[in-house]
Amino acid sequence: MKFIDLRSDTVTQPTEAMRKAMFEAEVGDDVYGDDPTVNQLEELSAKITGKEAALFVPSGTFGNQLALFTHCQRGNEVILGEDCHIIMHEVGASSVIAGVQLRPVRTDKGQLDPKETESKIRGVDIHFPETGLICVENAYSNGRVIPLENMKEIYNIANAHNIPVHLDGARLFNAATYLNVQAYEITKYCDSVMFALSKGLCAPVGSVLAGSKEFIDKARKKRKLMGGGLRQAGILASAGLVALNDMIENLKQDHENALYLGKELSTIPGVKVRLDDIHISMVFFTIDTALDDSIIVNEMLQRGIKINPTEDGEWRFVVHYWISRDNVDYIVNSLKSILS
Amino acid sequence: MKFIDLRSDTVTQPTEAMRKAMFEAEVGDDVYGDDPTVNQLEELSAKITGKEAALFVPSGTFGNQLALFTHCQRGNEVILGEDCHIIMHEVGASSVIAGVQLRPVRTDKGQLDPKETESKIRGVDIHFPETGLICVENAYSNGRVIPLENMKEIYNIANAHNIPVHLDGARLFNAATYLNVQAYEITKYCDSVMFALSKGLCAPVGSVLAGSKEFIDKARKKRKLMGGGLRQAGILASAGLVALNDMIENLKQDHENALYLGKELSTIPGVKVRLDDIHISMVFFTIDTALDDSIIVNEMLQRGIKINPTEDGEWRFVVHYWISRDNVDYIVNSLKSILS
Amino acid sequence: MKFIDLRSDTVTQPTEAMRKAMFEAEVGDDVYGDDPTVNQLEELSAKITGKEAALFVPSGTFGNQLALFTHCQRGNEVILGEDCHIIMHEVGASSVIAGVQLRPVRTDKGQLDPKETESKIRGVDIHFPETGLICVENAYSNGRVIPLENMKEIYNIANAHNIPVHLDGARLFNAATYLNVQAYEITKYCDSVMFALSKGLCAPVGSVLAGSKEFIDKARKKRKLMGGGLRQAGILASAGLVALNDMIENLKQDHENALYLGKELSTIPGVKVRLDDIHISMVFFTIDTALDDSIIVNEMLQRGIKINPTEDGEWRFVVHYWISRDNVDYIVNSLKSILS
Amino acid sequence: MKFIDLRSDTVTQPTEAMRKAMFEAEVGDDVYGDDPTVNQLEELSAKITGKEAALFVPSGTFGNQLALFTHCQRGNEVILGEDCHIIMHEVGASSVIAGVQLRPVRTDKGQLDPKETESKIRGVDIHFPETGLICVENAYSNGRVIPLENMKEIYNIANAHNIPVHLDGARLFNAATYLNVQAYEITKYCDSVMFALSKGLCAPVGSVLAGSKEFIDKARKKRKLMGGGLRQAGILASAGLVALNDMIENLKQDHENALYLGKELSTIPGVKVRLDDIHISMVFFTIDTALDDSIIVNEMLQRGIKINPTEDGEWRFVVHYWISRDNVDYIVNSLKSILS
Repeated sequence: MKFIDLRSDTVTQPTEAMRKAMFEAEVGDDVYGDDPTVNQLEELSAKITGKEAALFVPSGTFGNQLALFTHCQRGNEVILGEDCHIIMHEVGASSVIAGVQLRPVRTDKGQLDPKETESKIRGVDIHFPETGLICVENAYSNGRVIPLENMKEIYNIANAHNIPVHLDGARLFNAATYLNVQAYEITKYCDSVMFALSKGLCAPVGSVLAGSKEFIDKARKKRKLMGGGLRQAGILASAGLVALNDMIENLKQDHENALYLGKELSTIPGVKVRLDDIHISMVFFTIDTALDDSIIVNEMLQRGIKINPTEDGEWRFVVHYWISRDNVDYIVNSLKSILS
Repeated sequence: MKFIDLRSDTVTQPTEAMRKAMFEAEVGDDVYGDDPTVNQLEELSAKITGKEAALFVPSGTFGNQLALFTHCQRGNEVILGEDCHIIMHEVGASSVIAGVQLRPVRTDKGQLDPKETESKIRGVDIHFPETGLICVENAYSNGRVIPLENMKEIYNIANAHNIPVHLDGARLFNAATYLNVQAYEITKYCDSVMFALSKGLCAPVGSVLAGSKEFIDKARKKRKLMGGGLRQAGILASAGLVALNDMIENLKQDHENALYLGKELSTIPGVKVRLDDIHISMVFFTIDTALDDSIIVNEMLQRGIKINPTEDGEWRFVVHYWISRDNVDYIVNSLKSILS
Repeated sequence: MKFIDLRSDTVTQPTEAMRKAMFEAEVGDDVYGDDPTVNQLEELSAKITGKEAALFVPSGTFGNQLALFTHCQRGNEVILGEDCHIIMHEVGASSVIAGVQLRPVRTDKGQLDPKETESKIRGVDIHFPETGLICVENAYSNGRVIPLENMKEIYNIANAHNIPVHLDGARLFNAATYLNVQAYEITKYCDSVMFALSKGLCAPVGSVLAGSKEFIDKARKKRKLMGGGLRQAGILASAGLVALNDMIENLKQDHENALYLGKELSTIPGVKVRLDDIHISMVFFTIDTALDDSIIVNEMLQRGIKINPTEDGEWRFVVHYWISRDNVDYIVNSLKSILS
Repeated sequence: MKFIDLRSDTVTQPTEAMRKAMFEAEVGDDVYGDDPTVNQLEELSAKITGKEAALFVPSGTFGNQLALFTHCQRGNEVILGEDCHIIMHEVGASSVIAGVQLRPVRTDKGQLDPKETESKIRGVDIHFPETGLICVENAYSNGRVIPLENMKEIYNIANAHNIPVHLDGARLFNAATYLNVQAYEITKYCDSVMFALSKGLCAPVGSVLAGSKEFIDKARKKRKLMGGGLRQAGILASAGLVALNDMIENLKQDHENALYLGKELSTIPGVKVRLDDIHISMVFFTIDTALDDSIIVNEMLQRGIKINPTEDGEWRFVVHYWISRDNVDYIVNSLKSILS
């Protein structure tokens, strides 16, 4: 049985074109720098983000943590949104690998307040750690896209204090699609960026870290230390090339499907959708019901639909390449029938 | 020239009784457990805080960081107030020594909101670090004393989730004095506590970490690792015994002097004192003036008074054992003459 | 142009069967535990090594470092051979990720001396770190296979002191082939083992860590922290299954080719081969020549043969699946013509 | 009852002159740089060691670990003698605080072999950590003094590779006494040095780290992070000044007493003293006896003499300021009577 899987865009299967690319990929030992397909992916990634160089990494968490590890000295402080992915969903890795102190700031649905951000930057004092990095995230894990003006403002503050900015761009191309700009128009407001090839772009495995040549040279060695020096990684990179070349344009459809799903869901009695927050492929909503989460999850599963239980009382449905407009209608009808 | 030093209560000189005690102290090699004066201090400290055991440490930062290091596994998350001493003034040590991820919560002048605190405790999920510790601070670095009810509420939440609570009690006895309770009535709401022998109690060097016997046994070894295994530490412990036996009662006078100083300062035109926040020996205020900080600092110095410049626009004057009621009058008059 | 690549067995290309398996692989999101191919690989790996459970990891370094991180508390000491891979070629990762102190012992061509090993185990003393792990390696990076009796002796010592043993089995199946035993007859002398799917087995990317269920459960979470939680990893696992099912038996041929290469090389005047050390697919030798390394490397490259320069004065040629008996003759003749 | 304590020179009590100095010490808050006595001690220490600057630290372990932490980046490798104090008796701290990988080399009774040392220095390779520091120790923990030529040779190698050298000089002045040179004639072969004020010099607590001004500036901040920022530390520094001014010349007597003790012990049947290794105040010997360690330790204790049990089969007696020539005779006679 084929499921409709709404749990995340991380569940996306590779496309037929990706499987074909992997089958045919020209590969070499990437630890020796010998893999032509990896090299091609890294060059394309650098170009797309307007950076000097790029590096293939096994996952988004790997890329973010490698960025922290490369930008910072141990004991540095990193300023970032209090509900961002690095704090919420990376297993506390920053205290282990980079060995940095996180200094969260409140966010307005993902936007760092520039004033509060600047106030958290440390001056010179024997009691203070040094501020080593500011991290932003776009699109944010809450499904919202951060406006370019906010990114620019944070970047200017960082520059004024000689502090680098890292962008967690796991869903960079969703943000670019929503903002209707090229990716580099976002990434020009950061010194390094991590973006995922998997998720909405459907590659099976892998992310990319991009930045200055000097930064990537350092990161390449630290990637080896972290166990991310892979061998014939061109297999994965070949799917990544398909992701970047062919799949970005598909995100527009995903976003439209998400909006459509949100609107349809909001017609169900008791369902309250945060329609204004549907920027990309994620739909957040609450259900006013006596039914337990587990009952709804199971009933949906009976109907061939996989969903996660609520987090902090909210449901999150994520659409993607493998979910069609027809699927959306079926999802809405299924939920409607369960709730009635 | 003898200065009136308002920069902190850390500047307090040892008393004559302390110097005499140090001169006569019976000492041994404390790494061998042979120092009778250290042993006596640790026993008294355990008794005062109602804990099974205690350990002499070189400083408050040392004691706090040792507590984090002993309670937590590396990679754990620690919940604590966003403006507490551990975050603000301990050089980012928690990312180096304990290797933990800090998870700050907003505070209402130092009080952790119980609801927000509980919401930050992590459940079981492959994306989450484990919550290893909750830290509270009393008196808070902002000079305020946290009510017992708040401490109790946080402690109950922690217990319900099997999470230990550490109390940064650098100024524990100031808090006890303000609340008019014995120290153990505060420390019964924590599993471990660090308190300072220096600061308001005037010992030259040293703090104490107290907790269960098992906790202190582990901490003793980790203290050695951190370079805090001292030899004839009874010299310092003897002053610590004077601090605990003779100096606690003096804090009441300090608090009265602080309140008196606050009230007198508030009579100066342009000076706005946070009178409600004078719980212990610290007076925070603003001055509406065209004069630069540095001018005021220098003019006071000319008059034999040492003060720090403002932090976030606020002045902080700290009174202590070596500042008499007469000194307070002189301080107020000096500032008045400078501002007029 | 197709090169003959003798630099390492890490350069091996995936086989046609692997490419086909990857093309057809049934995959899911492995972070959710949904990837059937990964699950199948992990079950097979556990069975082959006689362990309760296994975990796919992106690389050998990743697997070794994850083992240290999972077995040890930070600050523990790890006993291991002074010239083993973890010390020599893993970028100092153990000081960053696991945060442990390495305690090397001399080896006799890779064999830990049992007596010296036991003497390095720490007793109880406030000055001592705790011994957390003993690491062995088989086959050793120097190309030699460690006899089972030595492994057993070290394992017995470790057991007597309640210390776990980790086996760096990057080339476990080479060792098993040489010893003419099943892999589990080696891995019964360790608590955890990492083995590579790439290298001689030709999978493009990936290694496996195996151990008790409890150990692997803990390692799974720490793998996520280290950025090794992959999504549709079944793509790679499918090649790994081919490696385990079809490629192990091929190692015998590699070993024979290595021995043949060694013998033929030793017929060249000035070439001195360590014939006794050819246990697996690696041939170490010196050349008595006035020619610089770089000249030899370049001349070989002109002839379509990739080799590394000497390390500590020794050349290492590594044969593998993609190097035929005919290739060996061509290699020997090429070197002969360069040297004459 | 007053014991004769041979367990270590760390058991030394402060002298009357030290107690008087502490009683009268002029002190200030050293975190503010306000303690005149600390400043005086640091200046004197810098002068004695021929370095630009110096820093008071709470213990020898603290000073050594602070040196590693300040010289190295995390993940660096440190070359040092395989049986030196940092490896053997500092609780594995280097893996926690500095986060470095130790790379031990064999020693000839404490002397690093220059050739082996140089061979351990890492070249540039993606698999290698960077060599960040070489550590030497003089006098060595085994009681031997390292010749200046060996120190010079190691220092030249380090300089040639742009690697700093740290000297663990816990017993620097014992070494200088034995070599009959000024301390700076030893410390000119290192970039930083830690020496103890306690041990043979009798100060109750404290060591000093010395080096370049830039190094000490960085170390001062890291000392705060490690919890070693003390307040009125002038109390301890005043005893340290007595140690440096008055106690160094006394070490000659200690060394003579040690030699005398060694010779007398060697007259006891069954006692075998390493006479050639008595360079400073330590006497190592074996006893050919059927008596258990614990019996000998207890019998000595009955006679008012404290000794440690054997380590690796050897007894170590350490003489110091509080052990007179008469005491030595009494010690020898006591052991003689127990063994007969």
